[in-house]
Amino acid sequence: MAFPVVGIVGGGQLARMMQEAAIPLGIRLKLLAETPTDAAAQVIPDVVVGDYRNLDSLLSFAPGCDVVTFDHEHVPTDHIRKVAAGGVAVHPGADALLYAQDKLRMRERLSVAGLPCPAWRAVEDAAEVVAFGTDVGWPVVLKSPRGGYDGRGVWVVGEPAQAAALMTGRASAVEPLLAEQFVDFRREVAVLVARSPCGQAAAYPVVETVQADGICREVAAPAPGLAAAVAVSGQEIALKIAAELDVVGLLAVEMFDTAHGLFVNELAMRPHNSGHWTIDGAVTGQFEQHLRAVLNLPLGAPTARAPYTVLVNVLGRLDERGRPIDPYPRYVHCQARDPQLRIHMYGKEVRPGRKVGHVTVSGSDLADLRERAHHAAAYLAGEIDG
Amino acid sequence: MAFPVVGIVGGGQLARMMQEAAIPLGIRLKLLAETPTDAAAQVIPDVVVGDYRNLDSLLSFAPGCDVVTFDHEHVPTDHIRKVAAGGVAVHPGADALLYAQDKLRMRERLSVAGLPCPAWRAVEDAAEVVAFGTDVGWPVVLKSPRGGYDGRGVWVVGEPAQAAALMTGRASAVEPLLAEQFVDFRREVAVLVARSPCGQAAAYPVVETVQADGICREVAAPAPGLAAAVAVSGQEIALKIAAELDVVGLLAVEMFDTAHGLFVNELAMRPHNSGHWTIDGAVTGQFEQHLRAVLNLPLGAPTARAPYTVLVNVLGRLDERGRPIDPYPRYVHCQARDPQLRIHMYGKEVRPGRKVGHVTVSGSDLADLRERAHHAAAYLAGEIDG
Repeated sequence: MAFPVVGIVGGGQLARMMQEAAIPLGIRLKLLAETPTDAAAQVIPDVVVGDYRNLDSLLSFAPGCDVVTFDHEHVPTDHIRKVAAGGVAVHPGADALLYAQDKLRMRERLSVAGLPCPAWRAVEDAAEVVAFGTDVGWPVVLKSPRGGYDGRGVWVVGEPAQAAALMTGRASAVEPLLAEQFVDFRREVAVLVARSPCGQAAAYPVVETVQADGICREVAAPAPGLAAAVAVSGQEIALKIAAELDVVGLLAVEMFDTAHGLFVNELAMRPHNSGHWTIDGAVTGQFEQHLRAVLNLPLGAPTARAPYTVLVNVLGRLDERGRPIDPYPRYVHCQARDPQLRIHMYGKEVRPGRKVGHVTVSGSDLADLRERAHHAAAYLAGEIDG
Repeated sequence: MAFPVVGIVGGGQLARMMQEAAIPLGIRLKLLAETPTDAAAQVIPDVVVGDYRNLDSLLSFAPGCDVVTFDHEHVPTDHIRKVAAGGVAVHPGADALLYAQDKLRMRERLSVAGLPCPAWRAVEDAAEVVAFGTDVGWPVVLKSPRGGYDGRGVWVVGEPAQAAALMTGRASAVEPLLAEQFVDFRREVAVLVARSPCGQAAAYPVVETVQADGICREVAAPAPGLAAAVAVSGQEIALKIAAELDVVGLLAVEMFDTAHGLFVNELAMRPHNSGHWTIDGAVTGQFEQHLRAVLNLPLGAPTARAPYTVLVNVLGRLDERGRPIDPYPRYVHCQARDPQLRIHMYGKEVRPGRKVGHVTVSGSDLADLRERAHHAAAYLAGEIDG
């Protein structure tokens, strides 16, 4: 039979959720995992344990796959080019992925394309930070161009003296930092689009994301109270980025919603936390959509299935004795309290602050959905006991 | 972590679809499959290859499972009792499952409980068939009490001479057949209920099923035009059967919709083809519900998510040269034609008439949904080419 094999590099929860989508499609997944107990390795039979930073691991993994895609964006683009040169399609490709890996190159490219970004500049020392702050106003946001996520690699610099403290001691050979104007946003939103090699694209409804300590806590779909014209502009921005960068697969664009419209914050070229609500809340979930896109299959409808869907992440916690709080025994309460609740667990060991699952609820009463989703996530995590 | 392990005996598409449901729940599946290429063995890492008819296979499979359940109803009840005596819970249990395995015992038990069945009698020879036909009228339906499915083991006997032809040559030691009055039904419906060990139960909406050559072709949920009182009576019948027989897990009750109300046709104690629509069309899919029930977790809402959901099975076909028609290359057309279409493939080799997948669509225009689902299933199967 012609059912294809999709290779996935990385064994986290995104690869795990791709398996849920692959099974009904009849698509076979082959996984390159770091350990045999990775979240996705628990649920995919065909697992190769190897290091995605090692070219030989990648070159020996790819044969037998119809296409290779990713659970994360950390695979070196030089390696991706060599896998592709070996004859196995890789989506998204290296030429696209580098803009998800390097925030400075992303800002350069989006600015050239005329897409709305905060004011930004590459800075190498404290004097350059101060000059930038003098130009655009304080505070200034400094970002490590590569490797940051969930708030890591981001610093908010309130005044020139802080810039000096932060920049002092950086080796001169270190790559420049990205300095950005601090955007006075009303809230954060995200737009998820899919794009296939033939150029078909589909945009999901714009969602509101709520972060705490740099980590996504809540997603409300669609973004409540967002003017239709602004929502359309958000989808247009994301679709334009996907086309400009020749993204194949999913692209998540995190944006600031401001009094002056939407501004691009970050890009992710893979299924994204801001899109997990689509599993339960959209006709075609993002993981199915990603598989369809990288296989150049026609895309599914990204339409919402309910007036609102709210997602809240379950973050790991320790109990008062320092032991991880196991969410499973807490199922009973949550399922009994809310028979409409959708629980998604990632098979990950509980560590403080780690995303170990999420919950979603759909309906029409946004305040009610928010209360229910936050209660369930807090109870599963062990933040509350009733 | 306390996440449980559920053992599944049998590696068909039902076990495969249980894996889709188990992944987000964080539940680990362990599979006893007949071959390493079974539909479910392709998508579950923890597979033991063995024979469910062999007690030693079952006894060595069960340890490490928190509960054992089934993809099919063919495991000998004596074996089930011995596994349970060994300390591993088995749901549904042997005392319940025997009524799904033996149609004569089912009829006896349901009649005692006052549940609406067609007139029936155990018959051992042609004379007894003729006597039954004389009493209730012709034609008469003869059923093999054990082992029949998808129309096998069922004979419609039009007149006394046919009874003689059919019964002649049956060894006297063979078990009696079940003779049933031929029910003049308007249509067939099915009711799916879940029941947990603590007695919590949930009933899905009553659905209409359309059979051809003894095989389910279409399911429409909810059954169109069914009077609310009749729908409630169907749910009451199914809930009463589940409680009477102490079923744990899912129970599907196939019924005849007649001018005189609903009559019970067949029972299945597992997720059922008539419930596949729930994956896309209900808040809680039947495979998740089954796992929750056998684990004694609170049940999920069985509510429909759309006014109508229509499912059509994809039955395998050969092309004009006798080669199996592969559904995968046919995806492109179906997905491009209908972005709302949900395709479910079972990873099974195509054989003529074999269920190899199903499609579902949800919406409010029943005629439109039926056209789309039938078109997609026919195109995937190779019945049509445009």
